[in-house]
Amino acid sequence: MLSSPMSVDALASLVEAIFLRAGVDAVQAAPIARVVVAGERDACKSHGIYRVAGCLATVKAGKVAPAAVPELKDEGGGIIRVEAKGGFSNAAFEMGVPALVERARELGLAALVINDCVHFAALWPEIEALTAHGLAALAMCPSYSTVAPAGGSEPLFGTNPFAFGWPRPDGDPYVFDFATSVIARGDIEIYRREGRPMPEGWAIDAEGAPTTDPHAALSGALLPFGGHKGSAIATMIELLAGPMIGDLTSPEALDLLGGTTRFAPKHGELILAFDPARFAAGRGTDPFARAEGLFEAILGQSARLPSQRRYAARAEALANGVPLSEAELAELERLYEHGLAAVE
Amino acid sequence: MLSSPMSVDALASLVEAIFLRAGVDAVQAAPIARVVVAGERDACKSHGIYRVAGCLATVKAGKVAPAAVPELKDEGGGIIRVEAKGGFSNAAFEMGVPALVERARELGLAALVINDCVHFAALWPEIEALTAHGLAALAMCPSYSTVAPAGGSEPLFGTNPFAFGWPRPDGDPYVFDFATSVIARGDIEIYRREGRPMPEGWAIDAEGAPTTDPHAALSGALLPFGGHKGSAIATMIELLAGPMIGDLTSPEALDLLGGTTRFAPKHGELILAFDPARFAAGRGTDPFARAEGLFEAILGQSARLPSQRRYAARAEALANGVPLSEAELAELERLYEHGLAAVE
Repeated sequence: MLSSPMSVDALASLVEAIFLRAGVDAVQAAPIARVVVAGERDACKSHGIYRVAGCLATVKAGKVAPAAVPELKDEGGGIIRVEAKGGFSNAAFEMGVPALVERARELGLAALVINDCVHFAALWPEIEALTAHGLAALAMCPSYSTVAPAGGSEPLFGTNPFAFGWPRPDGDPYVFDFATSVIARGDIEIYRREGRPMPEGWAIDAEGAPTTDPHAALSGALLPFGGHKGSAIATMIELLAGPMIGDLTSPEALDLLGGTTRFAPKHGELILAFDPARFAAGRGTDPFARAEGLFEAILGQSARLPSQRRYAARAEALANGVPLSEAELAELERLYEHGLAAVE
Repeated sequence: MLSSPMSVDALASLVEAIFLRAGVDAVQAAPIARVVVAGERDACKSHGIYRVAGCLATVKAGKVAPAAVPELKDEGGGIIRVEAKGGFSNAAFEMGVPALVERARELGLAALVINDCVHFAALWPEIEALTAHGLAALAMCPSYSTVAPAGGSEPLFGTNPFAFGWPRPDGDPYVFDFATSVIARGDIEIYRREGRPMPEGWAIDAEGAPTTDPHAALSGALLPFGGHKGSAIATMIELLAGPMIGDLTSPEALDLLGGTTRFAPKHGELILAFDPARFAAGRGTDPFARAEGLFEAILGQSARLPSQRRYAARAEALANGVPLSEAELAELERLYEHGLAAVE
């Protein structure tokens, strides 16, 4: 019997075992487990163990290649490419990190392109994997069409996450990771499951009219954050992490799934890494020390830095384990026992 | 006597002459004139000839080095650096373009760092200079503290513009360029000059309370667009185009001016260029053709692409000249005749 709280390591082993028993190759299972458990550990519930069933459903539906082994293609120059070959993105990302770090240090900046990956994860674990090497990082990817462009009436963009990180020598990095929709789709799904109305301004229904009903929103369209500016950023993400890298846009990813958003979408991802030590070279200033002054100024007027709630939850979980509800424990047991038979 | 409309070339010659007569070196004067006239030509009034007096005031106050000749420092790798040596940014940018384009084609991506430049221009002319070479481009810079962080109470960030472009084979590029404040400071200045109240939600006053008075806003703080998400992007711009490149943050740029925003600020700028042909290599798809499908989908639901109003104004101005009011013509004559004596 599982019990709460569960240590981060124990939860990671359990989630990895669930994926292995469901037929996911070991190359993919461990990286997926790390990312899912990182979300749960950080109280980022929309990207935590709640995602496990969806990943298994994606496997069961044949919408991901669970045995795929990603392949690194270093084409020289500033572009490191990893072909995920239809597998989940996580192993492909981990495979690309060493080459990306080395190339960013060599050139000052470099890009990691992941192609043909099935994507369900938050981007901040990837950002943190790069800030841990002293690099600044920017990551973005399309999703599947759920967001209307500003002034539009129907889904076109994905929730297109945009994430950035900056290393801080003496603590957790500065990291933000947000959907370019007003809210993440996962958050709307939580409202739907809880049967609660959403705040106004998040979505339009299938007729293009404003709605607070999560069901209507999920069959209509989310709205971009920040009006036409957020809509422009969502467009940029489609272009850079879609056509530019030879991979799918959000409408194409939705088409590939046959129009359903029940499964994780397949598309590409773009990660940029910058070496501040190289960019600041010859200027006689320490980029990291100077950045601290900016963070102090933000905190000094009682504004917050992003990710602080995640880091607080993480510290608590690492010290005392990850708190899980009875229902969550039962769901993990069910997925462990029944594997793909447990999902539709 | 000047008369309206004025051809783009005639206006550019006039603006260049104003700068030359005011003691700005020819190396800087022509690039500044091109950018100012591009703004006026595109009916982007907040970055058009309205800026000329401010530039001269910056010269007169000794806050820019009008005789500085920028210096290119190609440090190898993906970073091209141009030291503006305290001069206006425009000549430094133009000097860096050929090396940036060549390096982006060689490596797939490259960065142009401009250091120690005095900055007053919109970023879209720079973006268009790169899309003209078939490259996608991203540009950003701090400004001086006028924007409060989300949840904060006083100015910290600049209006920190963020601009992006994607080349379109058969027409004007896809380009956006926006302030990460709800509105550009130049737009608030126009409200102030016209004595009109601003819409709600743009700014807070010196006590941190919401205001619609442009005077109160200019002595208080603007707000970031999109709440904490826009605030996070403004922070990213401070970090990447400030400490990372060894240059000033917005509060530091304001301090350097002695706390006034009457003059153009000195800081750095970061421009990233991407070669889609390199990023898509081996994928068997044409990134530009596929991007057109996305633009068609946006336009197909009656949403707009950014910059279309600019391009329409440009076509009109190139065909029929730039329309200028009597007051604008008189101001240009005054600046031409009296140079630095015409400004405070």
